[in-house]
Amino acid sequence: MKLLEEKILKDGKVLSGDVLKVDSFLNHQLDVAFLSKLGQDIFNHFDGRGVNKILTVEASGIALACMTAQYFGCPVLCAKKHKSINISNDVYFSKVYSFTHKTENLIMVSKEYLNAGDKILIVDDFLAGGNACVGLIDLVKQAGAVVVGISTGVEKTYQGGYDRLTDMGYEVYSLARIAEMKDGKITFEK
Amino acid sequence: MKLLEEKILKDGKVLSGDVLKVDSFLNHQLDVAFLSKLGQDIFNHFDGRGVNKILTVEASGIALACMTAQYFGCPVLCAKKHKSINISNDVYFSKVYSFTHKTENLIMVSKEYLNAGDKILIVDDFLAGGNACVGLIDLVKQAGAVVVGISTGVEKTYQGGYDRLTDMGYEVYSLARIAEMKDGKITFEK
Repeated sequence: MKLLEEKILKDGKVLSGDVLKVDSFLNHQLDVAFLSKLGQDIFNHFDGRGVNKILTVEASGIALACMTAQYFGCPVLCAKKHKSINISNDVYFSKVYSFTHKTENLIMVSKEYLNAGDKILIVDDFLAGGNACVGLIDLVKQAGAVVVGISTGVEKTYQGGYDRLTDMGYEVYSLARIAEMKDGKITFEK
Repeated sequence: MKLLEEKILKDGKVLSGDVLKVDSFLNHQLDVAFLSKLGQDIFNHFDGRGVNKILTVEASGIALACMTAQYFGCPVLCAKKHKSINISNDVYFSKVYSFTHKTENLIMVSKEYLNAGDKILIVDDFLAGGNACVGLIDLVKQAGAVVVGISTGVEKTYQGGYDRLTDMGYEVYSLARIAEMKDGKITFEK
């Protein structure tokens, strides 16, 4: 069984409404030592593929992306959901519907930091329908950069994101692949 | 000169409207190797003081908080600005005005992860008027936990946050202390 799958069985909770609560270590309280182990796993999988930048989206993808980037020795580029006075006006942007927040967001990155020729690994904490990843891929394409692969923490396989992204031709490496959540019980993909 | 002050002189840009652009390494593109050095500096300063949790607020404080937590061997607790289906209803919350986004936000943490007796180090990327830190202190107080200290990346000393927080009795350790930004030139506190 994968490291994150063991952790979910130990510390995760299934709530009503198809919600998996992993906020004790993944997206509210952050167990950085554990996230670093996940980052190493991601590195081991994508090592030797020329990744020179990790792309994630604020806020809950940042921790895993940073831990992972330490192994690659590369920076993280964090797509923003809110225009801020700290970001220049010269941005790539894309539209993303958030399953978690039930809202549609613009995400954006400064053109300065995403360049043609960049080899990008996309990292996020959750993969449900794949909307966030499709938005991030769109940003990478606009820049003429290349998506080497996509790595996500918790994937709910039955929500279709994995199939959608692999059908688009991208490799998806998820650290926990949930096939079903029912009556508080989690079944992982074999 | 401090490590972050050197970096700001090398890679930062002063924009109009009192804006310091450090998005090439601190809050958009994240130079995790450099942030890790800053985290070690923060650890060296607060080592031996019993810190068992680092508290920050999404989104741009997360990276520095995570890098710092690796040295302390403790988790990060990331205060949320948006209620999400992943967070329980049982939260402490406080109100914070954001200088960067020109909006007032509620910030919140789950009561489950902030407990009486916790020794909290607050870490954030910027210190201006101190509003975010005052909100975070408020959360810690509500839980009956203790603020060991506050460490921020870039402090604009002239905006009063440092004085405000130290007047409240808290130790503030900032990694770059800007006394003035004028005509594109940055002067640091001596």
